[in-house]
Amino acid sequence: MLSKGPLHGLLPSTARVAVIGASGYAGAELLRLLSRHPRVRITAATANTSAGKPVSEIYPQLTTLGGLRFSTLNIRQLGRQADVVFVALPPGESTEPVGRLLAGSACKVIDLGADFRLRDPRLYTQWYHWRHRRPQLLERSVYGLPEFNRSRIIEARLVANPGCYPTAALLGLGPLMRQAVIERNAPIIIDAKSGLSGAGRSANPAFQLPEAQESVEAYQLGTHRHTPEIEQELGLLAGRSCAITFIPHLVPMSRGLLATIYVRLQRATTVAQLHRIYAAAYAGAPFIRIREGAANPRHVRATNYCEIGLAVVGRTRHAVITSAIDNLGKGAAGQAIQNMNLMMEWPETMGIDFPGLIA
Amino acid sequence: MLSKGPLHGLLPSTARVAVIGASGYAGAELLRLLSRHPRVRITAATANTSAGKPVSEIYPQLTTLGGLRFSTLNIRQLGRQADVVFVALPPGESTEPVGRLLAGSACKVIDLGADFRLRDPRLYTQWYHWRHRRPQLLERSVYGLPEFNRSRIIEARLVANPGCYPTAALLGLGPLMRQAVIERNAPIIIDAKSGLSGAGRSANPAFQLPEAQESVEAYQLGTHRHTPEIEQELGLLAGRSCAITFIPHLVPMSRGLLATIYVRLQRATTVAQLHRIYAAAYAGAPFIRIREGAANPRHVRATNYCEIGLAVVGRTRHAVITSAIDNLGKGAAGQAIQNMNLMMEWPETMGIDFPGLIA
Amino acid sequence: MLSKGPLHGLLPSTARVAVIGASGYAGAELLRLLSRHPRVRITAATANTSAGKPVSEIYPQLTTLGGLRFSTLNIRQLGRQADVVFVALPPGESTEPVGRLLAGSACKVIDLGADFRLRDPRLYTQWYHWRHRRPQLLERSVYGLPEFNRSRIIEARLVANPGCYPTAALLGLGPLMRQAVIERNAPIIIDAKSGLSGAGRSANPAFQLPEAQESVEAYQLGTHRHTPEIEQELGLLAGRSCAITFIPHLVPMSRGLLATIYVRLQRATTVAQLHRIYAAAYAGAPFIRIREGAANPRHVRATNYCEIGLAVVGRTRHAVITSAIDNLGKGAAGQAIQNMNLMMEWPETMGIDFPGLIA
Amino acid sequence: MLSKGPLHGLLPSTARVAVIGASGYAGAELLRLLSRHPRVRITAATANTSAGKPVSEIYPQLTTLGGLRFSTLNIRQLGRQADVVFVALPPGESTEPVGRLLAGSACKVIDLGADFRLRDPRLYTQWYHWRHRRPQLLERSVYGLPEFNRSRIIEARLVANPGCYPTAALLGLGPLMRQAVIERNAPIIIDAKSGLSGAGRSANPAFQLPEAQESVEAYQLGTHRHTPEIEQELGLLAGRSCAITFIPHLVPMSRGLLATIYVRLQRATTVAQLHRIYAAAYAGAPFIRIREGAANPRHVRATNYCEIGLAVVGRTRHAVITSAIDNLGKGAAGQAIQNMNLMMEWPETMGIDFPGLIA
Repeated sequence: MLSKGPLHGLLPSTARVAVIGASGYAGAELLRLLSRHPRVRITAATANTSAGKPVSEIYPQLTTLGGLRFSTLNIRQLGRQADVVFVALPPGESTEPVGRLLAGSACKVIDLGADFRLRDPRLYTQWYHWRHRRPQLLERSVYGLPEFNRSRIIEARLVANPGCYPTAALLGLGPLMRQAVIERNAPIIIDAKSGLSGAGRSANPAFQLPEAQESVEAYQLGTHRHTPEIEQELGLLAGRSCAITFIPHLVPMSRGLLATIYVRLQRATTVAQLHRIYAAAYAGAPFIRIREGAANPRHVRATNYCEIGLAVVGRTRHAVITSAIDNLGKGAAGQAIQNMNLMMEWPETMGIDFPGLIA
Repeated sequence: MLSKGPLHGLLPSTARVAVIGASGYAGAELLRLLSRHPRVRITAATANTSAGKPVSEIYPQLTTLGGLRFSTLNIRQLGRQADVVFVALPPGESTEPVGRLLAGSACKVIDLGADFRLRDPRLYTQWYHWRHRRPQLLERSVYGLPEFNRSRIIEARLVANPGCYPTAALLGLGPLMRQAVIERNAPIIIDAKSGLSGAGRSANPAFQLPEAQESVEAYQLGTHRHTPEIEQELGLLAGRSCAITFIPHLVPMSRGLLATIYVRLQRATTVAQLHRIYAAAYAGAPFIRIREGAANPRHVRATNYCEIGLAVVGRTRHAVITSAIDNLGKGAAGQAIQNMNLMMEWPETMGIDFPGLIA
Repeated sequence: MLSKGPLHGLLPSTARVAVIGASGYAGAELLRLLSRHPRVRITAATANTSAGKPVSEIYPQLTTLGGLRFSTLNIRQLGRQADVVFVALPPGESTEPVGRLLAGSACKVIDLGADFRLRDPRLYTQWYHWRHRRPQLLERSVYGLPEFNRSRIIEARLVANPGCYPTAALLGLGPLMRQAVIERNAPIIIDAKSGLSGAGRSANPAFQLPEAQESVEAYQLGTHRHTPEIEQELGLLAGRSCAITFIPHLVPMSRGLLATIYVRLQRATTVAQLHRIYAAAYAGAPFIRIREGAANPRHVRATNYCEIGLAVVGRTRHAVITSAIDNLGKGAAGQAIQNMNLMMEWPETMGIDFPGLIA
Repeated sequence: MLSKGPLHGLLPSTARVAVIGASGYAGAELLRLLSRHPRVRITAATANTSAGKPVSEIYPQLTTLGGLRFSTLNIRQLGRQADVVFVALPPGESTEPVGRLLAGSACKVIDLGADFRLRDPRLYTQWYHWRHRRPQLLERSVYGLPEFNRSRIIEARLVANPGCYPTAALLGLGPLMRQAVIERNAPIIIDAKSGLSGAGRSANPAFQLPEAQESVEAYQLGTHRHTPEIEQELGLLAGRSCAITFIPHLVPMSRGLLATIYVRLQRATTVAQLHRIYAAAYAGAPFIRIREGAANPRHVRATNYCEIGLAVVGRTRHAVITSAIDNLGKGAAGQAIQNMNLMMEWPETMGIDFPGLIA
């Protein structure tokens, strides 16, 4: 059985991992990254609709994985096959399998979906329009944003991997919430721009190239389900409840996500002062890069980095924070592996520390 | 000589037009649209660096124009060749030729650049870093946003065609400023996303496809020159000075521009209420389309329309107005022709009233 | 009843038109173009799955059409509502409705699908894998490539509008087949590159932007159904049977199609000599543009033009002909309207003669 | 001094490497890959126009490299700093520095440019329009296509890394040339489609997104400089001179290259028979993937793989071979590292063996 807590020596130096829901973009990106992680061996990749097919048939890019095939989900078997299980299922579909995994096996679980991110089960009813069936698990799960929760993640058995928008928004806003830098009652505006892989692999005419090119699609205005997730974590950082205005947009990219964040400063503040605040907040955070000016998802494409750009509009006393991630990297699969590294007490950057793509 | 004012009968029913600076994207779009306008004949298209070349050599799309060639700029000659002159030159380069045209000929002038948009000459020093050389002309020019200034445009001899970002921002914000709908001292945030044709035809590695794809580039944060233009016109609409936080972004599109505008409402307001306000404000404006939800530049691509999307985030009492245009259409060449139509007392939609592109 | 033949005076100067299958890309492009055609009025747009919805709900770009709604297909009613019917249905689905329209009404029919393009009904069995149910109609239909069949189209009641690939290939190869310019038994290679709107509006993960970008997908290698169509028409032009090697590719564009055609020359031939041959062949063809060098679909985007580029590789005695069209324009809806213009004895270019898009 | 030949034990297990011309796309991709190669340390990255600037200023993606700065080229110093030197300069500019490096130092050189690829110096006069200044070096250089020249590369001190188009074309055609599979005198047609990073980082309006999207640009028809390189190596494989018709196209991608190759078969041949020929030819080649059907550059994006698709058009007795690479990977930097691995007698796949990008 996998130990938790102080007896680090008992943690194995290698692990068998499984991915549930491996045929979507996040699942496939997990397979891609895990296949080169020096301490793991992939023992199962489930995908009910593609079960039996080689992974390389759907993703020829993953031919390097050899003969791995998608399988059907068998929780009992999976609990014996894996030390760490990643779950990448649509909202609401993780609750049951994760519950059974935790109860019936010793494996650690990292859920990339939304089912274990919110503390208050009523938020699921309100924002997701379904009733959470295992509310008691919400208390056991740890919100997997290592930059703020590193020590709790190390101890966790169930980690709720953050959503892509919350990752960018929280990393961009966190240092400001902890300090009394911004005006308390002024609006917090988060205008986010995401590539289309964030919308998943479901076939939708609006996501086809002829309709997705030359388009900027603002969607779910004020009703996007990542809103309560951002507000919950901001509230924990600030020590008070926070309301945000969050508007996501789809722009014609495959990958990448930029959150442009607008907050009013309490007093005149320079970019250099902001820089010091962020540098202090992220000292020791290996995947955060801070720059004066603007962040761009291009700079962190196909990586686990978050680039944070700092700017001040003096005339209106606003800070404009840009926070850029790869939605499949730090926004999903990369961060999940960062969490695994922490949970296994391996080096935090193992297997996910490489440069971004040139062109 | 062209008459102004009430003697409509004296206005000719056809016009000779010239385009100064015709080889950039806005100039070429002007040629494209003018070539199918039923009442105009293009008599000159100047472009100093391409002078002598057929337009179709640089823009094979415009082979339909026949043998038209770019010429060098000769103001004296142009004043005799044209009844209407469009000027599409870089900032600061219009002042002199427009001054000479107005003084030495009877033609009407529509300037697509920035040189005649700002009332206060000191703003040029502050934002453009050059001293305006003909400040007296600023009083004579009319800001060419027909939805707000129609009657003054009809009377004008010099129209300053608005910038692309100001067009989207002002059409989105105008109705709210005129009414006391929004909270007076709350921030006005304008987060804009533009296609790369808005950056002009200058060769820049960052605009090449390998670096422009998979990129969202926020730029000139708080210092973009369209800021004072937006503030000036908002101030006129509101009857008080207004400060905005305006952040433009380049997204991987050729054409199209979306301004997402965030303002705090004075009191709880429904989308239906907003709809009534906008419908009243734009009654009789043939190029404005209002919808509940979000606007998308895709819907108005290659047209002169502005689509305005109305949304309310009740939790934070914010209106989120999305305003979508084609940056080369309503944001430049299309609007310039709309202004010409008004100045010539032709039907406002003549030559620019067609559906958007499917795919 | 609509007359055919010599009594031109009986042809009405305006027409009521209907589009069957109007919600796909070709159908919507037809609506877009027809809405601005000076002599037609759209009386019906059928789309069974979207029946009842306003066209502008699916295509906000077409808001300019006003309140037009998609309707269900009712052949009997349509025959009374329309003088000209365009049919844009999937392969095999036009046969029945077209047969009924011809039998039960006086309207002219332009079918954009494949059902009436091939002379020999057995080719449907061989290439389409279904048996043609109205083979006698194949003799009555005219292949609607105006550049080669103008006089027959004028007389026709049923026109089979060519496929997008055949349009580009035939216009590129035709002049060479008519003359004894190319080596008789040498291979004819057609390597075609199409934008994704050519693949239709069906939702397919492979056509979504994250999988369609950064992709060049050769497909249906040697088995594409446009092959027999090209061979049939080439054979008619050459006066002998012709076999081609035709390989289509999808490239990351919305619109546009380039056919690069490789043929061995009988003897050393210059580009200037080719130019003379093509100029003679297309004298009086208003939508053909010939250039030395390469054609590019960019140059004819959103138009009905075909640009033909002429090049010779002297070392291998090959002509390399590039033929560029807009797959939705000259490759579908534009050409269909060109055919209507001919059938109605209106000016051939009416409503489809405009410049291409700048950027 | 670095030894060559049989005394493997003398080859160091790590190496200091330098990149000359490191600010272009190929150079930057080299830095990206080298920075994670387990046995190398980058000691210099020259780029005259950016000298003094941190690499991460031009390529923020490479912030992971730490403080590395571009430097000016100093051959004498470089010869002391590096065991292996990669040269990524424009055509004609490598001759001199490579000559001096070979004469004045013991380092191994891999030139990514064209200066040492052709055996016959007259071909430079003919195709490049300059006279080769060190023709004697042409005899010493080895053409760095490991799949055909592995043993000679191992022994080489100067390797001429193949061009991107030749890499794809030769890997696709090689097995057919070695066997008497194809008709001897029938044409060999190579229709290639490349992403725009292949055109380099030079600023050209035609490569900017608004003009590069929705474009397929055939260029240098019959005159592209990769033609003699392909013919030279095909001739060596076939044992007789070969002439090809090679037409490159730019398509709207950042990265990726597909060569579609058309050859007439001597006799009826099945895809399975082709498969056996290719499998035999590439037994032991770790970066070749063979599939029946079509290859797609998407499948090998950001990797060093070449995917080869095999198809037969029986009706015309043609083989249609598709060969897909990443133009910056196997087409440039990846292959250069593969060559280094061989020259250093390290495992051939070291540092370049990873899966392709998902989305």
